[in-house]
Amino acid sequence: MAGSTIGTIFRITTWGESHGKAIGVVLDGCPAGLSLSEEDIQPFLNRRKPGQSIYSTPRKEDDAVEILSGTFEGRTTGTPISMIVYNKSQHSADYSEIASYYRPGHADYTFDAKYGFRDYRGGGRSSGRETTARVAAGAVAVKILNQLGITFTTFTRSIGDIEIDEARFDRKEIFHNKLYMPDAEAAAKAGEYIVEMTKAHDSVGGCVEARINGVPAGLGDTVFEKLVANLAKAVMSIGAVKCVEIGDGAKVSRMTGSEDNDGFMFDEQGTLLKTSNHAGGILGGLSDGSEIRLRASFKATPSILKNQRTVNKDNENIEISIKGRHDPVIVPRAVVVVETMAAITLLDALLLNMTATMQGIEQFYKK
Amino acid sequence: MAGSTIGTIFRITTWGESHGKAIGVVLDGCPAGLSLSEEDIQPFLNRRKPGQSIYSTPRKEDDAVEILSGTFEGRTTGTPISMIVYNKSQHSADYSEIASYYRPGHADYTFDAKYGFRDYRGGGRSSGRETTARVAAGAVAVKILNQLGITFTTFTRSIGDIEIDEARFDRKEIFHNKLYMPDAEAAAKAGEYIVEMTKAHDSVGGCVEARINGVPAGLGDTVFEKLVANLAKAVMSIGAVKCVEIGDGAKVSRMTGSEDNDGFMFDEQGTLLKTSNHAGGILGGLSDGSEIRLRASFKATPSILKNQRTVNKDNENIEISIKGRHDPVIVPRAVVVVETMAAITLLDALLLNMTATMQGIEQFYKK
Amino acid sequence: MAGSTIGTIFRITTWGESHGKAIGVVLDGCPAGLSLSEEDIQPFLNRRKPGQSIYSTPRKEDDAVEILSGTFEGRTTGTPISMIVYNKSQHSADYSEIASYYRPGHADYTFDAKYGFRDYRGGGRSSGRETTARVAAGAVAVKILNQLGITFTTFTRSIGDIEIDEARFDRKEIFHNKLYMPDAEAAAKAGEYIVEMTKAHDSVGGCVEARINGVPAGLGDTVFEKLVANLAKAVMSIGAVKCVEIGDGAKVSRMTGSEDNDGFMFDEQGTLLKTSNHAGGILGGLSDGSEIRLRASFKATPSILKNQRTVNKDNENIEISIKGRHDPVIVPRAVVVVETMAAITLLDALLLNMTATMQGIEQFYKK
Amino acid sequence: MAGSTIGTIFRITTWGESHGKAIGVVLDGCPAGLSLSEEDIQPFLNRRKPGQSIYSTPRKEDDAVEILSGTFEGRTTGTPISMIVYNKSQHSADYSEIASYYRPGHADYTFDAKYGFRDYRGGGRSSGRETTARVAAGAVAVKILNQLGITFTTFTRSIGDIEIDEARFDRKEIFHNKLYMPDAEAAAKAGEYIVEMTKAHDSVGGCVEARINGVPAGLGDTVFEKLVANLAKAVMSIGAVKCVEIGDGAKVSRMTGSEDNDGFMFDEQGTLLKTSNHAGGILGGLSDGSEIRLRASFKATPSILKNQRTVNKDNENIEISIKGRHDPVIVPRAVVVVETMAAITLLDALLLNMTATMQGIEQFYKK
Repeated sequence: MAGSTIGTIFRITTWGESHGKAIGVVLDGCPAGLSLSEEDIQPFLNRRKPGQSIYSTPRKEDDAVEILSGTFEGRTTGTPISMIVYNKSQHSADYSEIASYYRPGHADYTFDAKYGFRDYRGGGRSSGRETTARVAAGAVAVKILNQLGITFTTFTRSIGDIEIDEARFDRKEIFHNKLYMPDAEAAAKAGEYIVEMTKAHDSVGGCVEARINGVPAGLGDTVFEKLVANLAKAVMSIGAVKCVEIGDGAKVSRMTGSEDNDGFMFDEQGTLLKTSNHAGGILGGLSDGSEIRLRASFKATPSILKNQRTVNKDNENIEISIKGRHDPVIVPRAVVVVETMAAITLLDALLLNMTATMQGIEQFYKK
Repeated sequence: MAGSTIGTIFRITTWGESHGKAIGVVLDGCPAGLSLSEEDIQPFLNRRKPGQSIYSTPRKEDDAVEILSGTFEGRTTGTPISMIVYNKSQHSADYSEIASYYRPGHADYTFDAKYGFRDYRGGGRSSGRETTARVAAGAVAVKILNQLGITFTTFTRSIGDIEIDEARFDRKEIFHNKLYMPDAEAAAKAGEYIVEMTKAHDSVGGCVEARINGVPAGLGDTVFEKLVANLAKAVMSIGAVKCVEIGDGAKVSRMTGSEDNDGFMFDEQGTLLKTSNHAGGILGGLSDGSEIRLRASFKATPSILKNQRTVNKDNENIEISIKGRHDPVIVPRAVVVVETMAAITLLDALLLNMTATMQGIEQFYKK
Repeated sequence: MAGSTIGTIFRITTWGESHGKAIGVVLDGCPAGLSLSEEDIQPFLNRRKPGQSIYSTPRKEDDAVEILSGTFEGRTTGTPISMIVYNKSQHSADYSEIASYYRPGHADYTFDAKYGFRDYRGGGRSSGRETTARVAAGAVAVKILNQLGITFTTFTRSIGDIEIDEARFDRKEIFHNKLYMPDAEAAAKAGEYIVEMTKAHDSVGGCVEARINGVPAGLGDTVFEKLVANLAKAVMSIGAVKCVEIGDGAKVSRMTGSEDNDGFMFDEQGTLLKTSNHAGGILGGLSDGSEIRLRASFKATPSILKNQRTVNKDNENIEISIKGRHDPVIVPRAVVVVETMAAITLLDALLLNMTATMQGIEQFYKK
Repeated sequence: MAGSTIGTIFRITTWGESHGKAIGVVLDGCPAGLSLSEEDIQPFLNRRKPGQSIYSTPRKEDDAVEILSGTFEGRTTGTPISMIVYNKSQHSADYSEIASYYRPGHADYTFDAKYGFRDYRGGGRSSGRETTARVAAGAVAVKILNQLGITFTTFTRSIGDIEIDEARFDRKEIFHNKLYMPDAEAAAKAGEYIVEMTKAHDSVGGCVEARINGVPAGLGDTVFEKLVANLAKAVMSIGAVKCVEIGDGAKVSRMTGSEDNDGFMFDEQGTLLKTSNHAGGILGGLSDGSEIRLRASFKATPSILKNQRTVNKDNENIEISIKGRHDPVIVPRAVVVVETMAAITLLDALLLNMTATMQGIEQFYKK
């Protein structure tokens, strides 16, 4: 089945395996006239690339993006934007052992079950490396949304049990620590925890949060294409995510209506506001103009040195220890993936929304 | 935008408003040769219809489904199955006041923001009544999956703070209490809690869980069409859901790799098993053959008698109390909605999976 | 497979069989705020309904359309518009014989080959009656396009060898004869020819042409979603169509570049014009602002009294004569089907086009 | 809008401009386990590449395809197959003049109308060079269909007025002349005609025909996804096509029912046959098991040396003569494009067809 495409108007198709020649994406439906070059995209890729800190794998992937089509004289033309990132550090030799067994927590077994065999080198298509392509396309979505006044604050909310303290929330701090946490104190503690777990030959999970401001009210749809439904799909399509929450999330199941409902009010300037934002900026599937808040919970990196039970090709029950350079935690590198997947979803809803009313259509074509 | 359709091969399109003439669904792509009549569908609708207990609204909706097309001599023909449920208890008069203000927690404001006006009668299209149509189509999906050996156990996991106790889990109990809880003791406590909150003019939230057995390994896709991503979308598209979890869900962010990874093993008969099921039956986006587990957290019914702040059409800040017959909790009626949305998603993945390998295709066309 | 839906933004899903309870359509993605009632739609259905002349079947189908959802206080709400037409003249008895053999030129055999059995009553889903649903939805598309200044002139271009004479082309004449020809003389001759063929127990084919004016330049896309590609699909999806042509059509294969190319020029007011319109209003897949011209060739009605060879259920070679009330020619009734399918396609392209440029998007959201 | 993708299960997305860095395609949904390398694809690209004869442009494009992903150890893995062809002979200098005016018969004007500006180098995205990517992906479709016993005979049916004679039809001859005609005599005459027209600074059109054998009965759908509708879209999406015909095509409008209907019969072995094949292998939108026949009429190359009227950027009416190396006829190079677009469409229908019946599904999952 064809499962590498997402989006209706702003539509991306990714391709490539962890240890193939390259990873890439075709971004179709990007509006014409956007100023765009590799410099707009590279900073996003840098946020997810490995080897940046002791908390991420020391693999050195260059991850330099190249635009192959869709721009002319520095602007997008409205035609597909093809982007490629060559894989420079394939070490197939490292993965020969992996071919012989199923790694717990990975897609090895399920791939074989579906396709009859698999590209076992570094996880092949199911490697986190595939998100490189998403981030490249999502960087374009973020740029467009920024031009329309929509901004993202995306960060690591927690690592293991260590969660940020809202009272210490500092947006600037996010890019000042290697864990992308908006709370320096939490970041320090989380760093210690990661080091400790790494020494224990184990790995850790965590939570990413995105806060999106400046979104016009009314984006999304009422039934299956609810903005929140598409955000959930986009974020849950990131490997290792096991939970997606919007607004107060799981907590709402324990709240009463009077606690959870956000009232409406006009402020002194006559602007319509909500008295709170438990809903996380989406009501009935449509954006309500207030801050959109969503969270994704990531499981711990499944590749660990600690012994694990599994089976091999000779149908034997065995114990394995997975060597190689693996992130002890993928959460910090996933921050930009959550941000860009949210951006792709939001931009698509924003473009689709242009056809919502006869009045809007008539005004557009009167020009 | 067109947002009332979901599914690629097994595809449903719902239509209708809470207080319009009828609610309906067109189910396209249903395989031919399935024995099907209204009797297969009605029991599912009965599970979501109101007026069944003191915990749900006393509105009497008949909700009798009629099949208008797509069957011949008791079997599906492969052509679209159109189903309709007439709205028998429209009381537009009840809703005249609602037209004048925005109800907190509802889609009133966002509808106006998107479309310029709204059908305010009972929430119009954003009413929970729309799910009647989903359930009708989903009943067909459940029937097909059952014939293929796939079974669903869907239930209320918690109401407010009252959660079921796994030690008391009793599948048969689910249909023995009005809250669809598999734990009679929890159901009794939850019932008391609901009565208490109703007296306090408030409402409560809760959590629904689905456990799906017999799913072949390999369903889903590796990137955007991950089985878990589509389940997340399907479930998050149900009104009032603010969190979707698969397997251990949000908890994984606090677990280590060695705690979370499910090992593999052959049992004595040589069957491949997992040593645990933290993953909830999905690895790398593909089903792994073990039980699929997912949870959805529902917020409390937003319509409450308690006073709430809002604004009216005259641009005034006001306080309102919402009268009328509203469920103090929507969770029990939502159980079947979660089940059928999961079934629609799973069946679509199962059908798409038939084209995964050359070997499968060649065998199919050799026949 | 799900094959009853067409369109991306403005999307219709039809359902129903010739001799089932009803025929219907769900129109999703219709912009909000359009004034709409059954009176807008009925005239289009009347153009395709049978029993209007000696040239069409004397079956009396009432074909009164009812809107079941999607409008409120006379205007569209942006939610799905469900429309239904009940089948009033089902005579299943007439079709008992047909169940025993394959009618030449019909879908009887191919239906059995695909689905294993078929609803043989009046052709079931493959009956021309299915187009009732398309016309109902397309009437809405025509209304919207009209409001945007886009107009249709659709007519019977030829019946058998009798073709209209451009020199006598009279738009008003189209609705003055039963064959929808813009040339009274041709219509008279064609009428005689039909009578003659009917007496010979045979049937005749013909050609429908649509001319569409006021289309803004730039609609469509450059590659697979070329406006002409989607028009071709929409028109070729009408039963009995075996050829679709745009502009000069098949004739271009015999023309040279200097004959076929349309030059550009500014007229005295500085308006950009083409010096001719061989292209039929579409260049490189995008509308060029001039009149769009397309033609569809329909085969003769396959149900004829004349003896034909076929096979029956007992695996015998037999000869049959198809009785019953069949149109000797379907072309006149198909005129409105071609028009509405073209309208649905064009409107969808027009809506999609709103997101083509950053400038257009920025202006839209500045409002 | 996103218009560079086609197909539901077997889905291709093309990218690239005539004078950009490269042209490419991502093929998603290709079944796993297909033996595949560049050698399977290159022969198809060679059939469309220029510089092969005096009848095509002497531009030397290397057009060597490279597979970047989706295969492992010589077989497809089920993941996206990314293919790239670098553009080696970009001569942007040649196109500087073209930037200043609108070429008649090209997409220059309509591109500007839609996007506000254009990549004018060699037609950019609207260049015939885009079909390189389609052919690369389509070669994979042809390979799969061949393995299932489905074969293509695609050829030039006519150039200008010179049409092949069925009596001289020789399949082997197709690859023995530079025009891909199955009739050596017609090929010789057509060659002379092209030379003559080239001397007259003009260009010529023609017609391509595809005959497809071995297609199982029942592929396609009954309403919008009729096999013939999707073939029409696929073929009409090729630049310069102005007419698509199936079976007897336009001629059916002049035939009677008794002439056009194909009877059914059992032969002596009890095989079901049709007594003729006016329908071209498709009945009611579904394949009927007999030979599928379709034709596409191509207009003459619009770039000609002969003077033409147009306008320039200074809003002046001017006359131009288009220099450069242009094919005097594109038909021979388009033969393989028609074949591969038909193959992509057919394979997608074949894959979708696997889910048509409960019986087929149950057998598949019993394995």
